[in-house]
Amino acid sequence: MLTLYDYLDSGNGYKIRLLCALLNEPYRWVEVDILKGATRTSEFLAKNPNGRIPTLQLADGTFLAESNAILWYLAEDSPFIPAERLQRAQVLQWMFFEQYSHEPYVATPRFIKKHFPADSPRQAELPQRLAQGRAALEVMDAHLKNDAFFVAGRYTIADIALYAYTHVAPEGGLDLAPYRNVRAWVDRVASQARHVPLTRRP
Amino acid sequence: MLTLYDYLDSGNGYKIRLLCALLNEPYRWVEVDILKGATRTSEFLAKNPNGRIPTLQLADGTFLAESNAILWYLAEDSPFIPAERLQRAQVLQWMFFEQYSHEPYVATPRFIKKHFPADSPRQAELPQRLAQGRAALEVMDAHLKNDAFFVAGRYTIADIALYAYTHVAPEGGLDLAPYRNVRAWVDRVASQARHVPLTRRP
Repeated sequence: MLTLYDYLDSGNGYKIRLLCALLNEPYRWVEVDILKGATRTSEFLAKNPNGRIPTLQLADGTFLAESNAILWYLAEDSPFIPAERLQRAQVLQWMFFEQYSHEPYVATPRFIKKHFPADSPRQAELPQRLAQGRAALEVMDAHLKNDAFFVAGRYTIADIALYAYTHVAPEGGLDLAPYRNVRAWVDRVASQARHVPLTRRP
Repeated sequence: MLTLYDYLDSGNGYKIRLLCALLNEPYRWVEVDILKGATRTSEFLAKNPNGRIPTLQLADGTFLAESNAILWYLAEDSPFIPAERLQRAQVLQWMFFEQYSHEPYVATPRFIKKHFPADSPRQAELPQRLAQGRAALEVMDAHLKNDAFFVAGRYTIADIALYAYTHVAPEGGLDLAPYRNVRAWVDRVASQARHVPLTRRP
């Protein structure tokens, strides 16, 4: 059986919980308290030397890191990755967009707002991060103007990767009101069969 | 024929030039001057709404963005992506590591050092970025202790993605001297057949 090392409030971890629910894939769930430094212990670093959750342990003991690489591994040969070469690359395009142009500006503000005091120097990062978060949401909104989902007109792991932090973006100070196509897509993802919310403990 | 929109000094663009050289894949090369804002024009944003190079145009006119997604597209069914499911996911694991935990801390300092004046407020970012760059190099060095390449014991696009900015890390202020396994791997990559340097204009 798979074992998922994860933290409930993590959008990156939620990506894996959501895909496993959609695939009806069972797994053992181990919560790692990132707020108490539990990803920086020598025990955890032996699992993932980069010290991050989610980290997936396969049945043979192998560890796999990086949320979007885990999504790809689990979704191979499922309806959540297209079979066509260009569409597969487009799924990856949006997943790399998510990690480079979206996550640091949509997820990190949420983390700072939730976990750092009002007088923390990290609060000073917010204006610049939120401006880049709005730029990412604009790119998504324009793309979704003519498309129900990000790639191939159907629900794929590109949507799962982007949904994870987009649907909770307001918790970081990003108002979704200006992005009507994004809001419609958020509702569309949440209405899929077998959907589970971020807050549901496995 | 493929058309690559690119900037010569970009490590992300170089990834594609290097893979095309290894694959003996011909392409038209269009330089876009990122320092003069040429990726922010309406003409370029029509090609890539996220306004970044490299962007690849396929023979049918379709545009594909994100350097590591382009690598995956071009390398499919070549020796540079393994066939085995776990190894494919491990290639992606290292490519997501590169974009999230490496590029902002190894490539961005190089960009700041090269293109911003000594009194620019962006210089203040360097100490924190370089500390995270050293952390990324430590993760790589530990992995390479027992492996000649990042995945499957052979040269894949995971190596290409990580080589692009690692081999020029000293230009950003990251000394590679403490990372002997990284240095041996840099030499190993550069000694592969058909290798081309970052500075070679196509």
